[in-house]
Amino acid sequence: MNKKSAYTVAVVGATGAVGTEMLSVLEERKFPVDHILPLASSKSAGEEVTFQGKDLVVKLLTKDSFQGVDIALFSAGGDVSKEYAPIAAKAGAVVIDNSSAWRMDPQVPLVVPEVNPQDISKHQGIIANPNCSTIQMVVALKPLHDHAKITRIVVSTYQSVSGTGKEAMDELAEQCRQLLTFGDINPKVYPHQIAFNCLPHIDDFLPSGYTKEEMKMVNETRKIMGEPTIGVSATTVRVPVFVSHAESINIETEKKLSVEEARAILSTAPGVQLFDDPSRGIYPLQLDAVGTDAVFVGRIREDDSIPKGLNLWVVADNLRKGAALNAVQIAEELVR
Amino acid sequence: MNKKSAYTVAVVGATGAVGTEMLSVLEERKFPVDHILPLASSKSAGEEVTFQGKDLVVKLLTKDSFQGVDIALFSAGGDVSKEYAPIAAKAGAVVIDNSSAWRMDPQVPLVVPEVNPQDISKHQGIIANPNCSTIQMVVALKPLHDHAKITRIVVSTYQSVSGTGKEAMDELAEQCRQLLTFGDINPKVYPHQIAFNCLPHIDDFLPSGYTKEEMKMVNETRKIMGEPTIGVSATTVRVPVFVSHAESINIETEKKLSVEEARAILSTAPGVQLFDDPSRGIYPLQLDAVGTDAVFVGRIREDDSIPKGLNLWVVADNLRKGAALNAVQIAEELVR
Repeated sequence: MNKKSAYTVAVVGATGAVGTEMLSVLEERKFPVDHILPLASSKSAGEEVTFQGKDLVVKLLTKDSFQGVDIALFSAGGDVSKEYAPIAAKAGAVVIDNSSAWRMDPQVPLVVPEVNPQDISKHQGIIANPNCSTIQMVVALKPLHDHAKITRIVVSTYQSVSGTGKEAMDELAEQCRQLLTFGDINPKVYPHQIAFNCLPHIDDFLPSGYTKEEMKMVNETRKIMGEPTIGVSATTVRVPVFVSHAESINIETEKKLSVEEARAILSTAPGVQLFDDPSRGIYPLQLDAVGTDAVFVGRIREDDSIPKGLNLWVVADNLRKGAALNAVQIAEELVR
Repeated sequence: MNKKSAYTVAVVGATGAVGTEMLSVLEERKFPVDHILPLASSKSAGEEVTFQGKDLVVKLLTKDSFQGVDIALFSAGGDVSKEYAPIAAKAGAVVIDNSSAWRMDPQVPLVVPEVNPQDISKHQGIIANPNCSTIQMVVALKPLHDHAKITRIVVSTYQSVSGTGKEAMDELAEQCRQLLTFGDINPKVYPHQIAFNCLPHIDDFLPSGYTKEEMKMVNETRKIMGEPTIGVSATTVRVPVFVSHAESINIETEKKLSVEEARAILSTAPGVQLFDDPSRGIYPLQLDAVGTDAVFVGRIREDDSIPKGLNLWVVADNLRKGAALNAVQIAEELVR
């Protein structure tokens, strides 16, 4: 991709929860957009989206959509990415793909700009945006890893329904309304009631008993951190929250880290907001993270069950840092 | 306490979330009750409760309440227990106390009947009922510990608001109603909004940064399991769910346990219901546990990040097995 003063940017899946957030983030961060091209499948093409105060009609995604496009942000599911990302790359665009389709491809860099920006330059037309739950974890852990070498991570997540999409947010609201008026509910998006209930089931189950979401946290963390043997054990859980994911993270390190050292490291870490003063009731909350860019870290405690361990509570807006913002940050690095 | 065909049973805190559940469980399980005595502080004395189809007026708790009482089930908070449990014991009753007041007293047995029934006989008038989040964890882990010796536990909880009490359940419902109609909310019971939000804060913070709830899981687990040095690292989180607690538990064992072995052990373990067939979408859910007696265990997976580790997802009704049922089961052992 040639350097320009402004770029033609396509957003594939422009009407989805992440796609609309991508448009907002491009606008807010004043990304040098010469021309914006919102694209979607036939289900949503023809709808309108807003960018820089203008209503734009979403165009139908076809094989010819990418002529003249410099950067294509994809967030329309794995199947669309599998089919159209190579087409866009061949047409000369750099694809930044939010689906899981290309993440573990050895030819495709998997990037969190605060963690491995150096990997961007290795791209061959496609750059993958990691899974939301992985992004916030590695932003919080990489600075600690650089100081003390993390050898093992045990993580349990508290993930919001917006990670599933708009229809899941509607389902949560609708089920709450129905249950509070003593009505019957009829789950459609999730296999079980999500209102006032937690589901230890995100994405499909694998023969090992882990879900794909859990294995994303294992494999993507290793790839992004460049540590193919780091131990990661994940339990991913959907909770009745609209936006933002929280994570209870336990780490074991090679070098001892005190709470004070961890706080000092994280207080200057890129993309991290330290929010850790329990005596004053200050700890990260999903509600507070909504619409913000930072990865909030708090409840840092020494784990007395091992010689060198820490517990942390990490929260971020899964639609922004967990998806749209990280993708736009990759685009920013790309044009820098 | 002398053996009888039926007993005089006092329930202190009879109008609370756990107290009413204690009355239900005594009735359901046909505990040999000769006379039931519902007691409460001046705030609730005079209200009516139901037992065996009869409405009973709740009497005011005084120093003279326990004459002729055989068994006194306490669930009226730590301060009430501290003051009145010794008075009841002195009057000849055996106190089964649901508060945290006496749990770590070396003279007081802390009992989960499936785990350490032998400790009941050591009582000197007071027996403590463990914390809800501890009970369900040790019921699930003790059988695995007996086979493979657990050396370390890392647990993150998903605890329902009923653990706080009735007023917290009302607050969750009210906040949901207000938010779904775009109204303003005004948190009273919790320091932050609980609707559509998770709070990594249960009970007070200690100087270490841990909460009292987290340290209950550490210290009570060690006492109940009779393993004063077992490693336990806990993060306790309140989630917007009405009833039942869920726990994501990671264990490290001395002897290797396969998923199949763990399932075989738990399938015959007392008080445990194995609910583990992810390929058919079967895993424990808080919703399914409401009103039931078992500790549900599922999502059993080998933890590849260490040579001998397992992950489990454990769910139970915190008002029943986590409180009222466990207390009544202690009473049953006592009169056996």
